[in-house]
Amino acid sequence: MTYDNLTLHTDKYQINMMYAHWIHGTLNHKAVFEVFFRKLPFGNGYAVFAGLERIVRYVNSLHFDDAAIQYLSEQEEQYDPAFLDKLRGFRFGGNISSVEEGTIVFPNEPLIRVEATIFEAQLLETAMLNFMNFQTLIATKASRIRQVAPDDTLMEFGTRRAQEADAAIWGARASYIAGFDATSNMRAGMLFGIPSKGTHAHAWVQSNDSEEIAFERYAEALPNQVTLLVDTYDTLRSGVPNAIKIAKQMELKGKRMGGIRLDSGDLAYLSKTARTMLDEAGLSYVVIVASNDLDENIIFNLKAQGAKIDSWGVGTQLITAADQPALGGVYKLVAREKDGELVPVIKISGNPEKVSNPGRKDVFRIVSRETGKAVADYVALTGENEVQQGKKLKLFDKVHSYIYRYVDNYDAKPLLTPIFVDGRQVYELPTLDQIRSHHQQQLALFWPEYLRKLNPAEYPVNLSTTAWELKMDLIHQYQA
Amino acid sequence: MTYDNLTLHTDKYQINMMYAHWIHGTLNHKAVFEVFFRKLPFGNGYAVFAGLERIVRYVNSLHFDDAAIQYLSEQEEQYDPAFLDKLRGFRFGGNISSVEEGTIVFPNEPLIRVEATIFEAQLLETAMLNFMNFQTLIATKASRIRQVAPDDTLMEFGTRRAQEADAAIWGARASYIAGFDATSNMRAGMLFGIPSKGTHAHAWVQSNDSEEIAFERYAEALPNQVTLLVDTYDTLRSGVPNAIKIAKQMELKGKRMGGIRLDSGDLAYLSKTARTMLDEAGLSYVVIVASNDLDENIIFNLKAQGAKIDSWGVGTQLITAADQPALGGVYKLVAREKDGELVPVIKISGNPEKVSNPGRKDVFRIVSRETGKAVADYVALTGENEVQQGKKLKLFDKVHSYIYRYVDNYDAKPLLTPIFVDGRQVYELPTLDQIRSHHQQQLALFWPEYLRKLNPAEYPVNLSTTAWELKMDLIHQYQA
Repeated sequence: MTYDNLTLHTDKYQINMMYAHWIHGTLNHKAVFEVFFRKLPFGNGYAVFAGLERIVRYVNSLHFDDAAIQYLSEQEEQYDPAFLDKLRGFRFGGNISSVEEGTIVFPNEPLIRVEATIFEAQLLETAMLNFMNFQTLIATKASRIRQVAPDDTLMEFGTRRAQEADAAIWGARASYIAGFDATSNMRAGMLFGIPSKGTHAHAWVQSNDSEEIAFERYAEALPNQVTLLVDTYDTLRSGVPNAIKIAKQMELKGKRMGGIRLDSGDLAYLSKTARTMLDEAGLSYVVIVASNDLDENIIFNLKAQGAKIDSWGVGTQLITAADQPALGGVYKLVAREKDGELVPVIKISGNPEKVSNPGRKDVFRIVSRETGKAVADYVALTGENEVQQGKKLKLFDKVHSYIYRYVDNYDAKPLLTPIFVDGRQVYELPTLDQIRSHHQQQLALFWPEYLRKLNPAEYPVNLSTTAWELKMDLIHQYQA
Repeated sequence: MTYDNLTLHTDKYQINMMYAHWIHGTLNHKAVFEVFFRKLPFGNGYAVFAGLERIVRYVNSLHFDDAAIQYLSEQEEQYDPAFLDKLRGFRFGGNISSVEEGTIVFPNEPLIRVEATIFEAQLLETAMLNFMNFQTLIATKASRIRQVAPDDTLMEFGTRRAQEADAAIWGARASYIAGFDATSNMRAGMLFGIPSKGTHAHAWVQSNDSEEIAFERYAEALPNQVTLLVDTYDTLRSGVPNAIKIAKQMELKGKRMGGIRLDSGDLAYLSKTARTMLDEAGLSYVVIVASNDLDENIIFNLKAQGAKIDSWGVGTQLITAADQPALGGVYKLVAREKDGELVPVIKISGNPEKVSNPGRKDVFRIVSRETGKAVADYVALTGENEVQQGKKLKLFDKVHSYIYRYVDNYDAKPLLTPIFVDGRQVYELPTLDQIRSHHQQQLALFWPEYLRKLNPAEYPVNLSTTAWELKMDLIHQYQA
C-alpha cells in the first residue's frame, strides 16, 4: 500500500466545518487565517522558519481522488452526496503569503497568511501546521547546535531515532538549512541534494576476524577520506592503535585516512588522548569524529573541556528536538467576510497570551540604517502606511503598554512574500543553497545578544498602535 | 515530487559496508542480527511492540530503482559500477522473525531477528529501527494513558504537532493498537480503518455572527452526536448556556446532542460546573470532552480531583511522546558465518549495559500454570531445549548472578514468530482489531504491579545459563 495523496492529511473537524459551511451556503465567504507560534522552543532567542517548500508542494497537489471520496462517503453517513461532488472539484484558489525558509522569526508575528474562501482555508490548517511546526522546530534546534560549533563539521545522524520516515528526511533538510553540513540519510541526500556522509558500524568490525583486518579492508574498499570507528572493543588500547597502523599503511600507498570516530566513553578524555596518539604518529591530518547522544549543551561542554573533536554526528537529540519535541504553531482566523466586507475577528481566552490579534496583518523587520542591525519586528494592519513611508514608529511593550520608545531612520523589510495568488504559485522555490545563504544573512542582521544559547535577550515584536487599539476594542466588545 | 521508494531510507554507512563486503567477497556470508532496546521509556514497566506491519511492507517493497542507482553513482565516485548492478538485482532473501504487534515487551530481549546475508541484513537496519522505535514508543505512551482512563473515550488529536506526516498516521495507528478509540487524522482513518472523530474549531464560532448561531448551524448540519466547542469567548457564561439552548432545541426535533468540548482553562472546575449545568437542564446524556495538552499525568490528576470528563482528546504529548521522544532500539550483530559455520560475536563497551548478548537467541514468556500469570521472559540460545521440554529453569539476576530462583510447572510461549522465510512472507498480517485484542490478552497476563504507571515492579528478563556463559567467555577472550 502506497498512497501519497495528502489531501486527507487533516483533522476530521476540518471536513466537518467545510460541510457545515457548504450546508449553510457560507462556503465561499472570504477568510483570512494567520499562522504564528506563541513561545520559542528550547529557551532560544529566535526560531528558524522552515517548511515552506513542503507546504507549496502540498497545496499544489491537493485533490480529493476516488479513494478519498469513497472513504468520506463510507465513514460519515451525514455527508450529502452533493458535498462529495463539490470536494471532487476542489482546488485551492486563494492567496498565501509566507516568510521565506531560513528566515529568523519570533513569537506572535504572522509567519504564513492564508486568504481564501473559508471552505478552502479550513482544509489547509492541519497539514500546514504539521509541516511548519516540525521543520521550524528542527531548523531551530540545528541552529543552536551550529552556534556552539561554528567552525566544525556537523552531520545529522538521526534517522533510526526519528519519528518515522518523513521526519528523517524533512528533519535532515531543516538541519541543513540551519547550517549542518551533511546527513547520513541517503533518501534525504537524493531528494534534496544534501551531502551524505557515513563511516561504518560496529557490525563491520564484528563481521571480520579482527579489528585490524576490518580496518584494513574498509580502507581498501573506500580509501577516500575513510573514517574508522574505533570503539568496538577498546578505544585506546585497540581501536586507535589499529587505526594508526592502517593510516601508515595508507600513506605508503599515497593515500590519507580521513578520520576516526568515537561513539562511546568519555569523549573529552578519549579525544584528547587519541589526538595525542595520532599527532605523535605524524597523523595530525586525521580528524576526530564524535557521536553518542550529543546536543548543543554536551558539545558546548566538551569544547570547554578542550575536547579535540573536529566533526560531530548528532542524532536523536536533533532529529526529535528531544528537549522540546513540538513547536506550538497555530492557525487563527483573523478576519472574515460579513455582508460583503472583510471584518476582523478575535478569539478571547482566560489566558491573556492566548487572545488572538485580530485583523489582516503584515510584518516588517525594522533595520537601523546606522548599525545595519535589526531593531524590532513591527506588526501592522494591512493599509497602515507609516512603515513603508519610513515614518517615525512608536514601539511599545505589549503587556506594559506605557513602556515605549520611538524608532527613526530605518529600513523596513516585509517578511511576508506572496507564494500563491488566486491559487497560482507565483513564488519560485529557492535552491537549498540559496536558503542556506539567506539564513546566514539573516543571522548577520542580529546582535549576538539575541542569538546566544543561554538567556538570550528578548527581541521586540511590536504591534502597531492601530492594531493594538483594534484588539482592545474587540475585547471590550465581547466583555460587554 | 513524490517518491515513495524507501530503499534509500537508510544511513550511508550501510551502503558503504555493503560495498566493502562486495569488494572483499564476503557479501554472502550469513549474519544474524537482533533488535532490542536497553531501557523502557517514561519510567514505564513495559513497552507495547508496534511497527511490524510497516516493516513487512518495507521489506517487500525493497528495490533499487533507476533513480536510486543514478543517485548512488553520482554521489559516491568510489563505488564500482558492477556494485551498482548488483544492487539493481537486490531483493531480500533471508529470514525475519519478530514479536507480534500489540505484545508486551521488555528491555534486553530480542524483538526482531534477521538472518540473512550480511549484504541484505545491513541494508535493513536503519529503516527497521526507525519504524520499530517510533511506533513502539507511541503505543507505549498510549497504553499509559489508557491505564489511567480505563473506561473513558480516548481520541488521538495530535496531527498538527506530530513530527511530520508519517508520524501522524503511524502514531495514530500505534495509539489505536494500545487501546485508543479514535483519531482525528482522516488519512489514518482511511489507510488503517481507525474510527475518525472530530468536533469543530474556534474558527467555526468566529466565522458566524454569534456563538449561538454558530452552534445552531453546526447542529443543523451535523446533528448526529454533535459536539460543540464551548470556550471561544467564555466557557461558563456563554459557551455552556448556548450549548444547552441548542441541546433543548434539538430535543424538540427528536435529536440528541453528543457532547461539549472544553479546550482551555481549569478543566477540573469547568467540567464539574458544566456537568451540573447540563444535568440541571436535564441533559445528563450530553458528555464532556476535554483537550489541551493532556497526558497521563494530567488526566490522572484531573480524575483524582473529580473532574467530570468522559472523553479525552490527546494531542502533542502522545503523538510526540513528549517526555521521552525516542526509544533507543538497536540492531546488533550476534552471530556471523566464519569458515562455513555460524559463530557468535560480541560488542564490548566501557558501559557494562552496552555489552551485547552474543549468539542467535530465542525468547520465551514463562507463564505459571498455577496463576496463569507471566513469571519471567527467558532468553536462550537456539538449540537449548530445556524450555520447550518444560524442564525446571534457573532464573538468575543478570548483574548479581548469585541471586536466583527456580521455576517449574509453566507454559513457555515463544515470542518470536517467523515473518519471512528465505525472503518469502510466511506471516499473514493480522487486522487491527486482532492486534488490539491480542494486546488486551497480553495485558491480562501480567500482575498489575508490572503495569502500574508509577514505580512499576521490574519484570524479570533472564538469560539462560548457557547464553550467560557464552557471553562471559567472549568477554574474557577479548580482555585477554
